[in-house]
Amino acid sequence: MALPLDVLEKSVNQKLSLLLKDGRFIDGKLTGYDEYMNMVLDDVEETYEETKRRLGTIILRGNNVVSISLM
Amino acid sequence: MALPLDVLEKSVNQKLSLLLKDGRFIDGKLTGYDEYMNMVLDDVEETYEETKRRLGTIILRGNNVVSISLM
Amino acid sequence: MALPLDVLEKSVNQKLSLLLKDGRFIDGKLTGYDEYMNMVLDDVEETYEETKRRLGTIILRGNNVVSISLM
Amino acid sequence: MALPLDVLEKSVNQKLSLLLKDGRFIDGKLTGYDEYMNMVLDDVEETYEETKRRLGTIILRGNNVVSISLM
Amino acid sequence: MALPLDVLEKSVNQKLSLLLKDGRFIDGKLTGYDEYMNMVLDDVEETYEETKRRLGTIILRGNNVVSISLM
Amino acid sequence: MALPLDVLEKSVNQKLSLLLKDGRFIDGKLTGYDEYMNMVLDDVEETYEETKRRLGTIILRGNNVVSISLM
Amino acid sequence: MALPLDVLEKSVNQKLSLLLKDGRFIDGKLTGYDEYMNMVLDDVEETYEETKRRLGTIILRGNNVVSISLM
Repeated sequence: MALPLDVLEKSVNQKLSLLLKDGRFIDGKLTGYDEYMNMVLDDVEETYEETKRRLGTIILRGNNVVSISLM
Repeated sequence: MALPLDVLEKSVNQKLSLLLKDGRFIDGKLTGYDEYMNMVLDDVEETYEETKRRLGTIILRGNNVVSISLM
Repeated sequence: MALPLDVLEKSVNQKLSLLLKDGRFIDGKLTGYDEYMNMVLDDVEETYEETKRRLGTIILRGNNVVSISLM
Repeated sequence: MALPLDVLEKSVNQKLSLLLKDGRFIDGKLTGYDEYMNMVLDDVEETYEETKRRLGTIILRGNNVVSISLM
Repeated sequence: MALPLDVLEKSVNQKLSLLLKDGRFIDGKLTGYDEYMNMVLDDVEETYEETKRRLGTIILRGNNVVSISLM
Repeated sequence: MALPLDVLEKSVNQKLSLLLKDGRFIDGKLTGYDEYMNMVLDDVEETYEETKRRLGTIILRGNNVVSISLM
Repeated sequence: MALPLDVLEKSVNQKLSLLLKDGRFIDGKLTGYDEYMNMVLDDVEETYEETKRRLGTIILRGNNVVSISLM
């Protein structure tokens, strides 16, 4: 069985696409995470209602995340 | 009696249809979960207000889930 | 005194009608539950804004539940 | 001093009127409760935006309750 | 320094005016409270969007409270 | 490094301006706080959508606070 | 792997740009934080729906934060 945190572990240094509770999409490379699914992402691009922003490196709070797509 | 996590355990490798708090539907094959009902799903199709997206493999945060339908 | 979880225990294999926080109604037979009031329900019919859906067996997250009516 | 749970204890078998977070009013006789203020109520009448429903016996989740009026 | 729960302790048998998260105002005499700031209030008057209701004695859930004004 | 609670400790008897989750601004003198950032404030003025209210002494629940500005 | 709190630790005395749940942006220099991601920020400028405010030093509650951009 694939535990969610094990799948996240295997995704380190991979590109992910995240959907946040407020409807934002975050695309970036996972460089770290913790047990609360707080994440560190590099080369981030945020998409919100048709508008894109380049964000570089971000720390993302896990409790805002709806889903994490592996790419 | 059918404990919720035991029913989830028996659903591994089965197709599920999930309703999320924001009204999204997620259809996919369950490949893993944890005690918080975080889930790993494969072959995911998301439906949101008539629009469908293919998402491949996702990690879904349990606290966004309203209901999980066994299929 | 009737403890809430004891009343739920006595309702196993009975039909229940649940009101969820988003206004959905869930009617079905309780087949299991846990200490967080997560529930497993069979023969489920969901009613949401005049629309009914047959859902079969579902796992319902307790934190979305407002009230549980015994029938 | 009147501890909230002690006041609830003394209200067992009394009629209560509850206001929920979504604006519903629940009138019924308290038959039980737990430490989270989950409650069991009998002879319940729900009032929501001018509409009344008879609900019989319900289990009410404490985290949806705003206030409990003793009658 | 004035600890919040110590200030509440000194307010027992005093009149308070509370603002709730949904915009309601609750005026009443504090007769008890617990560590979660659940409160018991007597002689309660609720004001909500220009409408006043007399509620007598209520138990108020602390997690709905924004602020407590001493009078 | 400046720990948030240490900065709050140094702000006792100082004027603060708080922004709450519902958009209210609270200006007052901090007289106490606890580990949850519940606060006691004196000489409080609340501003909400252009309307000001004098509130005297209040207990403010920490979980409604977005930010605390030192003045 | 880059743990989120380690990345925050390395950002002390650096400029950060934060997105809050209510859509506010907070730009400032991080001077401290705690395990809940509560933060102390200096030289803060808040941007909310085209309006900017200078806030000086603030304590920011971690549970309002969506993302923290390193600059």
